[in-house]
Amino acid sequence: MSEQAATVTSKPNGPYELVARRTYPEYRRTTRCRVVNVAGVAVGTGCPVIIAGPCAVESRDQTLAIARAVKAAGADLLRGGAFKPRTSPYEFQGMGDEGLEILAEARARSGLPVVTEVLDPRDVERVGQVADCLQVGARSMQNFPLLREVGRFGLPVLLKRHWAATLTEWLCAAEYIAVEGNLDILLCERGIRTFTQGDYNRNTLDLNVIPAARRRTILPIIADPSHATGDAAMVPDVARASIGCGVDGLIIEVIADDSQRCRTLCDGPQGILPAELEAIADDARGWCRRPQAKLAPR
Amino acid sequence: MSEQAATVTSKPNGPYELVARRTYPEYRRTTRCRVVNVAGVAVGTGCPVIIAGPCAVESRDQTLAIARAVKAAGADLLRGGAFKPRTSPYEFQGMGDEGLEILAEARARSGLPVVTEVLDPRDVERVGQVADCLQVGARSMQNFPLLREVGRFGLPVLLKRHWAATLTEWLCAAEYIAVEGNLDILLCERGIRTFTQGDYNRNTLDLNVIPAARRRTILPIIADPSHATGDAAMVPDVARASIGCGVDGLIIEVIADDSQRCRTLCDGPQGILPAELEAIADDARGWCRRPQAKLAPR
Amino acid sequence: MSEQAATVTSKPNGPYELVARRTYPEYRRTTRCRVVNVAGVAVGTGCPVIIAGPCAVESRDQTLAIARAVKAAGADLLRGGAFKPRTSPYEFQGMGDEGLEILAEARARSGLPVVTEVLDPRDVERVGQVADCLQVGARSMQNFPLLREVGRFGLPVLLKRHWAATLTEWLCAAEYIAVEGNLDILLCERGIRTFTQGDYNRNTLDLNVIPAARRRTILPIIADPSHATGDAAMVPDVARASIGCGVDGLIIEVIADDSQRCRTLCDGPQGILPAELEAIADDARGWCRRPQAKLAPR
Amino acid sequence: MSEQAATVTSKPNGPYELVARRTYPEYRRTTRCRVVNVAGVAVGTGCPVIIAGPCAVESRDQTLAIARAVKAAGADLLRGGAFKPRTSPYEFQGMGDEGLEILAEARARSGLPVVTEVLDPRDVERVGQVADCLQVGARSMQNFPLLREVGRFGLPVLLKRHWAATLTEWLCAAEYIAVEGNLDILLCERGIRTFTQGDYNRNTLDLNVIPAARRRTILPIIADPSHATGDAAMVPDVARASIGCGVDGLIIEVIADDSQRCRTLCDGPQGILPAELEAIADDARGWCRRPQAKLAPR
Repeated sequence: MSEQAATVTSKPNGPYELVARRTYPEYRRTTRCRVVNVAGVAVGTGCPVIIAGPCAVESRDQTLAIARAVKAAGADLLRGGAFKPRTSPYEFQGMGDEGLEILAEARARSGLPVVTEVLDPRDVERVGQVADCLQVGARSMQNFPLLREVGRFGLPVLLKRHWAATLTEWLCAAEYIAVEGNLDILLCERGIRTFTQGDYNRNTLDLNVIPAARRRTILPIIADPSHATGDAAMVPDVARASIGCGVDGLIIEVIADDSQRCRTLCDGPQGILPAELEAIADDARGWCRRPQAKLAPR
Repeated sequence: MSEQAATVTSKPNGPYELVARRTYPEYRRTTRCRVVNVAGVAVGTGCPVIIAGPCAVESRDQTLAIARAVKAAGADLLRGGAFKPRTSPYEFQGMGDEGLEILAEARARSGLPVVTEVLDPRDVERVGQVADCLQVGARSMQNFPLLREVGRFGLPVLLKRHWAATLTEWLCAAEYIAVEGNLDILLCERGIRTFTQGDYNRNTLDLNVIPAARRRTILPIIADPSHATGDAAMVPDVARASIGCGVDGLIIEVIADDSQRCRTLCDGPQGILPAELEAIADDARGWCRRPQAKLAPR
Repeated sequence: MSEQAATVTSKPNGPYELVARRTYPEYRRTTRCRVVNVAGVAVGTGCPVIIAGPCAVESRDQTLAIARAVKAAGADLLRGGAFKPRTSPYEFQGMGDEGLEILAEARARSGLPVVTEVLDPRDVERVGQVADCLQVGARSMQNFPLLREVGRFGLPVLLKRHWAATLTEWLCAAEYIAVEGNLDILLCERGIRTFTQGDYNRNTLDLNVIPAARRRTILPIIADPSHATGDAAMVPDVARASIGCGVDGLIIEVIADDSQRCRTLCDGPQGILPAELEAIADDARGWCRRPQAKLAPR
Repeated sequence: MSEQAATVTSKPNGPYELVARRTYPEYRRTTRCRVVNVAGVAVGTGCPVIIAGPCAVESRDQTLAIARAVKAAGADLLRGGAFKPRTSPYEFQGMGDEGLEILAEARARSGLPVVTEVLDPRDVERVGQVADCLQVGARSMQNFPLLREVGRFGLPVLLKRHWAATLTEWLCAAEYIAVEGNLDILLCERGIRTFTQGDYNRNTLDLNVIPAARRRTILPIIADPSHATGDAAMVPDVARASIGCGVDGLIIEVIADDSQRCRTLCDGPQGILPAELEAIADDARGWCRRPQAKLAPR
């Protein structure tokens, strides 16, 4: 590790380089981003993609039902966690391998590629057998051994911003993936922790970071209105705000119906209904027909 | 004052009541807000209004030129400060009475009603002679004597949220105005102070607070993308985000042309050009034709 | 006002100058501060002073009893509010003029000089008749007209830091007082608002700001463990922490006995008992005999 | 994993139990903590221990020199990183295995037990061969696979609080270690990220959390004034503040002499000199002779 560090330390161009806009002459004078191909779904074309599904895979029935519903509502990719990072060791930790099998079946039936989280560098191979895109969660944003492993594995990576990460820290986390040869990275803003926590939301969606990141990196940037609010009633407005801000996609938690809200093991209060997702997806598609908002490069 | 306090303390319905949605049966089952009439401009109809102008009145020529330009770009109201709250006593403090005269002339020539700030309870009468809407700035949000005076004066009030105010503190500040008999209040979100300050922005625009406030109050809610970013290059994206979130208006700082950016005495880096304002105003008008995003009341 | 601004803007030495350490050759190579004389009590000598009393003056009996108790416990100055800034207009707003009379009697009987808050520039004269030191509260830290009035009045001023103020903003607020000819200013850190609010405290006591401010200004700096925690059980530890950090004084809220905690109209949960105050005062005096912690000037 | 989760989920006593004060009748009515034995050094006796050393092991000479100096200055334990979590992949990542060998030699020569960080669950065995106490860094506080591995390994663990972790999140992270059978955990507060970042410090030392955590857990709690300020000139005052607040120890970064400040590869600006450490250690020892500050349990 020390040798590697010695080699790499010689890079002269700032703390991140491979993901930086200024590194690529062809991107320098635009706000276009590098398109990432997730099992045939193009992210970063100017038309926002919709990633939707349950917070966690909790059963075969629940997952297949939600997969069917989000497909019908217009989703492009299916989300759902088999390995869940949970604050307490006594909370539901995900279904693990069994959850991965359910996700594989949900993909086969719905035709939607799957985005799912990996927590442990030793699990990358295992989760990567099933996933079309590996999610690195907010808590793992600076889990450097994990970042290097998902970089080496080669599947597209959805990299969430930690709730207290600066923009540089976030882009440097992406750089850890990129230095292993993998540039297929989607950045995901999921809310920052501010004094408003516990007042009217769980986190503060930080949309200022979208144009700020756009200016510095060629990577596509998506938003997560579910975690950024923690409240299903706020998700539609905040999803539309994100689209208005020019994000390349949304990742949204969905529950099958209102009866599930309290029985859900993970994050029930923030899941929206399939009909609400459909309205958001329609609005997002409407945005595709408009020219993208241009940001003057510095 | 002790007698008054004794009387008012008997109110049973929480820390704010006159501005609360639940107080009004006719508003309880909708997300509509109470329309505020600012010299003939209706705020809160579902179609966002555009308030634009210089940060500060710095000269007659500058103010008249910008007023003409924002009118042509589609603004509904003219903003501009004659009394400026400044961090240091050695910074430009505004033109004072001379600035008020210039604002009166700008209104006469452009036909745009004027929104301007008042800092001191002793100045309410004087500023109120010229203003169509009195602005209470973020730093004054809990200047209770000032809030009572602008409440008594009776003109519409634009009440900015302090950068570290909870939602309850903000609504209670509005209540101080309302208890004096004045419900013509526009709430304005202008960014909160978070750990991101100085990283890529001056403040974090908090759009989560829009649906959260909508649920609790009948007052119209607008956003200030200029202060919420501190960076002209971020204003257009963030203005569109605010519109997507369902705000009732935008207040935006404008400079006449790029040559003014460095010569401007106050907040030059965040002023946008008239052409950029026009594009934002067009997008906002497009939003009028759409049904307003609905938020499920709690 | 515009003329004045024009004059003052010409100051060349940064946003604050009169309160800056670098302005005074005699203070430049030390961390000593300028001693402020509050009716015979010297603040800034290296031995921390204790300012204690009720949050608000709520009755003659309550105030006289607490004044007697804090005097016996070793307090140097009496605190207590007759005009209270309260989040909601329906909360107890202070006893006003009647409260000032009670404070005058408490001073006469206890022999302790009085620190009390003024909220409105129009009240400075009235409050100043009774106070030995005028307090400008956190919410008023950038109430510039108020700062100028207390500057002109000439009594010592205790200037609280707003819960979201940078160090520069705080020192510039002091400068607004100083430009009116009054350098008798005590800075008071009372906690900043962070994501921890509502978790285990009301605010986060920011002791890092003590050495940082020490380096930049000649003004004495005190701490307010009561507001910085909002929890009586945390006050003693945090008070000792402040003393360890080298503050020039503590301002602490006291209740007469535990039965008062719930009946107190203002901030009952954070008031400590006289016996706890006495233990803190003893520790503070122990600190006087030690050489002050030295901070290497930059 | 799902079976385990199912079993563990049945715990009835809140999100953390094994580290909670209320779980242990013998601790319930005191503020004493459980003493942790780090290779013969008792932490949590009421007398603060001093952990000191370089930020990173950068060479044999540097490490041996600093180890000798901190021993002479009164340190009880040696700190120093062989594996360093760094924001950018291009920064010095630590000397790895070679660094571990140097640490082993430094321990042999100085007689000080060694605290060093482990980043990767696959490295626990390797680092644990040399360490007397494994450090889990702030960025890894919610690296749950790592927490479980260090729990299983059985050496004492120094668990830093993430800069944006609530108290519950921090105690739950300790619980992940404890459920694997290891209660030898030292909690370490190292500063939280607030709006003050980049103003006058890198982080805000949060001393309020010390009494708040004391009330809830039996684990010893130490403070890290180096990371909590990021500025050597602030470390002594803030270290004394921590001692005043009743911490069970301090962990402090030391450089050999001022000429090292700029040549140091990691965190040079926050390292203090051996002479400054000695003064702090003397003050801490003075504290041992005093009865510990008592906090009223809730």
